[in-house]
Amino acid sequence: MKCLFVVADGAADRPCKELGGKTPFQAANTPNLDTLAADGVNGIMDVISPGVPPGSDTAHLALFGYNPCKYYTGRGTFEALGAGIELKEGDVAFRGNIAMIEKGIVKDRRAGRRDAKLFEKALKGIRIERVQGIKPVVKATVGHRFVLVLRGKNLSCGITDTDPHKTGVRIQKSKPLEKSEAAIRTAAAVNEFTEKALNVLKKHPANKNQKFKANAVLLRGAGIFKPMPSMKKKYGLRAAGVAKGALYLGVARAVGMKTIAPKKATGTVNENYESLARAALKALKNHDFVFVHVKGPDLAGHDGKPKEKVRVIEGIDGMMGKFMKLKNTLIVFTSDHSTPCSLKNHSGDPVPVMISGPGVRPDDVISFDEISAAKGGLNRITGLSLMPIVLDLMGKSKKYGA
Amino acid sequence: MKCLFVVADGAADRPCKELGGKTPFQAANTPNLDTLAADGVNGIMDVISPGVPPGSDTAHLALFGYNPCKYYTGRGTFEALGAGIELKEGDVAFRGNIAMIEKGIVKDRRAGRRDAKLFEKALKGIRIERVQGIKPVVKATVGHRFVLVLRGKNLSCGITDTDPHKTGVRIQKSKPLEKSEAAIRTAAAVNEFTEKALNVLKKHPANKNQKFKANAVLLRGAGIFKPMPSMKKKYGLRAAGVAKGALYLGVARAVGMKTIAPKKATGTVNENYESLARAALKALKNHDFVFVHVKGPDLAGHDGKPKEKVRVIEGIDGMMGKFMKLKNTLIVFTSDHSTPCSLKNHSGDPVPVMISGPGVRPDDVISFDEISAAKGGLNRITGLSLMPIVLDLMGKSKKYGA
Repeated sequence: MKCLFVVADGAADRPCKELGGKTPFQAANTPNLDTLAADGVNGIMDVISPGVPPGSDTAHLALFGYNPCKYYTGRGTFEALGAGIELKEGDVAFRGNIAMIEKGIVKDRRAGRRDAKLFEKALKGIRIERVQGIKPVVKATVGHRFVLVLRGKNLSCGITDTDPHKTGVRIQKSKPLEKSEAAIRTAAAVNEFTEKALNVLKKHPANKNQKFKANAVLLRGAGIFKPMPSMKKKYGLRAAGVAKGALYLGVARAVGMKTIAPKKATGTVNENYESLARAALKALKNHDFVFVHVKGPDLAGHDGKPKEKVRVIEGIDGMMGKFMKLKNTLIVFTSDHSTPCSLKNHSGDPVPVMISGPGVRPDDVISFDEISAAKGGLNRITGLSLMPIVLDLMGKSKKYGA
Repeated sequence: MKCLFVVADGAADRPCKELGGKTPFQAANTPNLDTLAADGVNGIMDVISPGVPPGSDTAHLALFGYNPCKYYTGRGTFEALGAGIELKEGDVAFRGNIAMIEKGIVKDRRAGRRDAKLFEKALKGIRIERVQGIKPVVKATVGHRFVLVLRGKNLSCGITDTDPHKTGVRIQKSKPLEKSEAAIRTAAAVNEFTEKALNVLKKHPANKNQKFKANAVLLRGAGIFKPMPSMKKKYGLRAAGVAKGALYLGVARAVGMKTIAPKKATGTVNENYESLARAALKALKNHDFVFVHVKGPDLAGHDGKPKEKVRVIEGIDGMMGKFMKLKNTLIVFTSDHSTPCSLKNHSGDPVPVMISGPGVRPDDVISFDEISAAKGGLNRITGLSLMPIVLDLMGKSKKYGA
């Protein structure tokens, strides 16, 4: 049996005034999701634990059955993997922005969203010299964003960000959060890189006559790379991930999925669902497990736009229509977390989860939404319980005892 | 957002024959609780874990989000705090009774419920001399009850009670339960205190011509005091607790709540609900989180009186009526444990729990009782999950991951 595993990022919500007290899932017209829910088993899920708002990184690890308490050290590694960098054990990776400062004060954390690719070569030229044996690796990603990886022996992600996360204040010095030599070395390397970036960017020709000068870098989300067992090794599954965002591709790569970023997919509220569906159907031909990530609902949630979320969910429902005739395939549909429009941020509310396909015990839920799912046959599970349930339905579970 | 957190002690029950097979919550007329349940999200909760009957002390720790496995050492510390004693780290506290013995045999564990205050001064005069550096602190509380605190270096609560918990047997010698010097010292101090109390009480003038001679002390529930992070520090909440019983005030103090014991409140089955409601409403003005403890239903349960429990629950429902118009306030209503009238004791049955207020996803439960709640949107949670869920609804949760 195969499994199609669809994550509607941040789609779960709370009752919205603009929707007459309904959640976007309740308000949306979702004939395909409702059919799947009616045929399947439904429930609510604490992706991390009750009341705890999951980050997108920790959430996806948990959904794939990898305990984030064990495997999560920071977002940087997943962004680096998603950007296509080959990480080695012990590498420390950061998310980076090019930014504009004046007299050391951050004026624009994104330098007017200018393209980091313009400055990639200059940043790649920086060498760490004050700390021995550390080599920086730089890769520009989308817009103003880039990834920095520090490679070398004895590094640590137990250091603070240089990104102050707001404007009007100084770039921060990275400080060790532990007393280890590794943390001291890493913080020093980060500070040296940041300082040298200032010099390199100050005189960069691409900043000439620009309103937004990309004259600084801001680093955040340090993570140290520990190789994780692949889904092939852990579960015996040939797995693929269809996504557009670097983070999701990165988590998929971290667990050994083949990653597919369809060219026409946008990763926005105006998604090309056709391209996601096509990529998923193609991947299902030679993979056992295909993860599909849809970013749109999370963006609508962060923007606080319930009606837009409804529209996005209806688009996703249309995509699900392409999967209704799959044979011998388990379809899992859920969210990585709730992003209530009223909060414009992640919340700790449980997400609805549905499993439809051969072997499931159908319950009497006939609509896919947060409230209906809570009455479903799965009851309330945790994120780490989902994969074992899926594996068991796929015939891939192992008996405990004899 | 604020939170009103009402605990109806031991109100949860099993079906009662005297009530035609209904539980007291089902049999009671509770228009306010039913309205809150209808507007809110409901569930059942294993305060400790499935099938484990919680003590009142461990239950309240769990309800406030403090893992009793980590913080609970014995009831004595909470009784001492509730009696207004300032505890220091390492203090070992006991619950004490004055009692009547004859030739070393316990005749009445409560000395006819005489007032321990009559003997407080005499007990305060006792010095520990055979063990170095231990100072006893005595405080009479309600009726025949008092609190003993042993203060000094290197003490342990790993010792046995001197209270045999029944009549017709000898006062017990306290024995160390561990091989540590601390436990040996503490048991010796307890035995010296007990021995000297016998001498002091034997000739006490208040025992002259009394039928019930308070000529002994019985000690139980040793706990060692470890300071706990306050709810302010742990959650950022200014918290207050409205209660009458020393234990509940003690747990509230232990987690840093401002404690309020309304003068007119009785802590009995004939409660002055008006005074509890008034104190809670007043406390809500300058606190974020207000805990209200109502003792009556537990007493009715221990007495095995279902109809009395119904009457008490209807009284509590009247109290809840005073809270129905609160704005921007989450109302949580639950029990710390079940006290089935058929058992006259705590049971491990889950308790119903309800959360009503802004942001909750209402389910279709329209009656607050054990059976209806089991079909609610919270499904089945543990006691330690409740505070994270409440904090998330209050906007005080922290994201795990990025």
